[in-house]
Amino acid sequence: MNHNKAAVVMQTDFGKGIAVCTMQGVCTMVDKELKIFDCSHDINNFDTYQASISLDYIVDFWPAGTVFISVVDPGVGTSRRACVAKLKNGSYVVTPDNGTLTHLKERIGIEEIRVIDEKTNRLKNTEKCNIFHGRDLFAYCGAKLASGIITYEEVGSAYDVNEIVTHELVPYKVEGSVITGMIANADYHFGLICSNIPVEVFEKENIRYGDYVHVTIRKKGKDIPAFEGEVPFCQSFGFVKEGEPLLMVSESLHIQAALNCENMAEKYDLHAGSDWMIKIEKR
Amino acid sequence: MNHNKAAVVMQTDFGKGIAVCTMQGVCTMVDKELKIFDCSHDINNFDTYQASISLDYIVDFWPAGTVFISVVDPGVGTSRRACVAKLKNGSYVVTPDNGTLTHLKERIGIEEIRVIDEKTNRLKNTEKCNIFHGRDLFAYCGAKLASGIITYEEVGSAYDVNEIVTHELVPYKVEGSVITGMIANADYHFGLICSNIPVEVFEKENIRYGDYVHVTIRKKGKDIPAFEGEVPFCQSFGFVKEGEPLLMVSESLHIQAALNCENMAEKYDLHAGSDWMIKIEKR
Amino acid sequence: MNHNKAAVVMQTDFGKGIAVCTMQGVCTMVDKELKIFDCSHDINNFDTYQASISLDYIVDFWPAGTVFISVVDPGVGTSRRACVAKLKNGSYVVTPDNGTLTHLKERIGIEEIRVIDEKTNRLKNTEKCNIFHGRDLFAYCGAKLASGIITYEEVGSAYDVNEIVTHELVPYKVEGSVITGMIANADYHFGLICSNIPVEVFEKENIRYGDYVHVTIRKKGKDIPAFEGEVPFCQSFGFVKEGEPLLMVSESLHIQAALNCENMAEKYDLHAGSDWMIKIEKR
Repeated sequence: MNHNKAAVVMQTDFGKGIAVCTMQGVCTMVDKELKIFDCSHDINNFDTYQASISLDYIVDFWPAGTVFISVVDPGVGTSRRACVAKLKNGSYVVTPDNGTLTHLKERIGIEEIRVIDEKTNRLKNTEKCNIFHGRDLFAYCGAKLASGIITYEEVGSAYDVNEIVTHELVPYKVEGSVITGMIANADYHFGLICSNIPVEVFEKENIRYGDYVHVTIRKKGKDIPAFEGEVPFCQSFGFVKEGEPLLMVSESLHIQAALNCENMAEKYDLHAGSDWMIKIEKR
Repeated sequence: MNHNKAAVVMQTDFGKGIAVCTMQGVCTMVDKELKIFDCSHDINNFDTYQASISLDYIVDFWPAGTVFISVVDPGVGTSRRACVAKLKNGSYVVTPDNGTLTHLKERIGIEEIRVIDEKTNRLKNTEKCNIFHGRDLFAYCGAKLASGIITYEEVGSAYDVNEIVTHELVPYKVEGSVITGMIANADYHFGLICSNIPVEVFEKENIRYGDYVHVTIRKKGKDIPAFEGEVPFCQSFGFVKEGEPLLMVSESLHIQAALNCENMAEKYDLHAGSDWMIKIEKR
Repeated sequence: MNHNKAAVVMQTDFGKGIAVCTMQGVCTMVDKELKIFDCSHDINNFDTYQASISLDYIVDFWPAGTVFISVVDPGVGTSRRACVAKLKNGSYVVTPDNGTLTHLKERIGIEEIRVIDEKTNRLKNTEKCNIFHGRDLFAYCGAKLASGIITYEEVGSAYDVNEIVTHELVPYKVEGSVITGMIANADYHFGLICSNIPVEVFEKENIRYGDYVHVTIRKKGKDIPAFEGEVPFCQSFGFVKEGEPLLMVSESLHIQAALNCENMAEKYDLHAGSDWMIKIEKR
């Protein structure tokens, strides 16, 4: 393994099966030495918001220079752009430009973005098929970039970073003793509800482990909150009884709500997105 | 990584868990340098037809010489043969001979087939267990072949390629303006319905993007079609409204039916196999 | 790939997604050359018994020295110990000390156990987060150990092997013609019911392939058995008709019950654990 070669990390909404397998085969045909990793292939079908928050969650924990290939692509074969973004931390994202870059653009920043040139960076003999750019364009071009066969400039023409398609994000705000944010991420496996409120806000507002706060989670336009209660801020799950709610610091260092050993997202039918708000009041 | 070592690609109906983990451990014990990839481990339990179509879908996108280990093996421990097939494209398939080689035999061709010799190519100290050839025979022998510890000839005795067990396949046909084929593959994740009709048939019949055709999908012996309608032939999903049907060119360059952003297989309860027919009429 | 570097094998109850992806990224940041494998990430949430039996199932099939990282960790961030166990076969297990080491301690034996020193073996800049030791402690420390950056002694202070937290295991016993054991493992994918009765017991009791025995499976405290019947002991599934029960030798060389091509665990609602007993009577 050549140390100068970048790791390849893939995420899709394809499920882990034959489609992803051909993407990894194409990478291996480009360069047998590449190390290829799977992130999730269970992104909700067509959900470019989830693709975006997932990338944002993982990029800091991979070496600079890593090539992330993300294929959630309901618009495949239409006029949406196929691109490679160079992040300000030195890593790359190969993806349709369809909202998948939202969080990375906001938090890390995108230094440069280029359209993949289909003439030079498309797998040969796939021209008749327009429905699988994951294999024919993204995996092929991403592997060439990761292996050093092409430079970033050789991906294709640059375009204006301001043209990148993004989802609406609602910034958190602090008004008096009330902190409001959105549900940035809903983890359906354990049911964790992660807000976009950074832990520093709690530090500034002097909310400490053991303190109780009043939490309201509401979908925009709904009168009745989906969840409401007095909730302690704790170091971890095991500081409350099983089934009881708590706030904690998430892996991404935001304020997160959960039930100990139970699924909060499922129990209260909570979801991520700019129309789901969380309000935290210090009493 | 030695460039002369072949990649190992595994598919099973075991689910991705402890059983597959021991198969990959056995490969690693044989040769720590091997690169091992997962295709699907969610083949329907005991479904050797699906195992066959899956292999056919992936082999072209891996380097010649790749060793595919496929274990869908309802007859494990009985008299069915454990074999390694050498494909005409230079790759290998390690599998029970139970129908799994059907599509590869038909399309690519099998140059030679050999029974795995249990005396030399079975993992030591596993003789008391007859139910996990995936680990004790297929992974162990496949890893030795991929790493170059044994030659193909050292797998075991060759037998007649004509003895290979195969599923029935119904060839497509064109009669006047009517094209008939079978459902070769039903993708349950997105609900795509892929026929065995090559794109060249549409080219010859002069069916072009934007043309509407009459599509009927029917299970043999059923009077009422499972699906029937006027359907446009399009470049990709996004050329029709969400929920509407279309025909397109599949990743394997066959004619494929789908709904845009909806699951056609699920909605109309469509399945793959020689008893599921698709009829396309030019009007 | 350096031959002296150990393989890393991961299992969690996180599902295969973004959390596991950050664990593998952290390992790659520690050492780009590490080979990282997935065992199951679908351990039942919080089920440390299943984590334990899974490790026991896989360790023998990986090279000595392999570093297993197991994260089923309902007590994360509480006072439970984060540890690395050195097994008597030369491999390592990085895990919370919460029952996960039960079967390995019993069968292979644990040579030494050490608490992970958070001062030296925790990923930098993660101190504010207490809920993801999988990434910040177990993956980071495990990768350093696998790559040879730290020795086993540098993990942290040793503690008494007798302090290791374990689940209750009920040993099998033979009384006259009656053999009794517990359900050690219930495989939900194929529905296999594996006991803790070693195949040698059948050999000693002279039960041979083709013999019928009377099998009773019962949950402790229940009057009515969950399953009862005359069952043949066979080489493999295909020796009985589809849907019929049989006993066989499992992959771990224990006596296992199953239905041919049907899911016995699901059909009779059978589970693993010390409160599920299987009784086998020779007639």
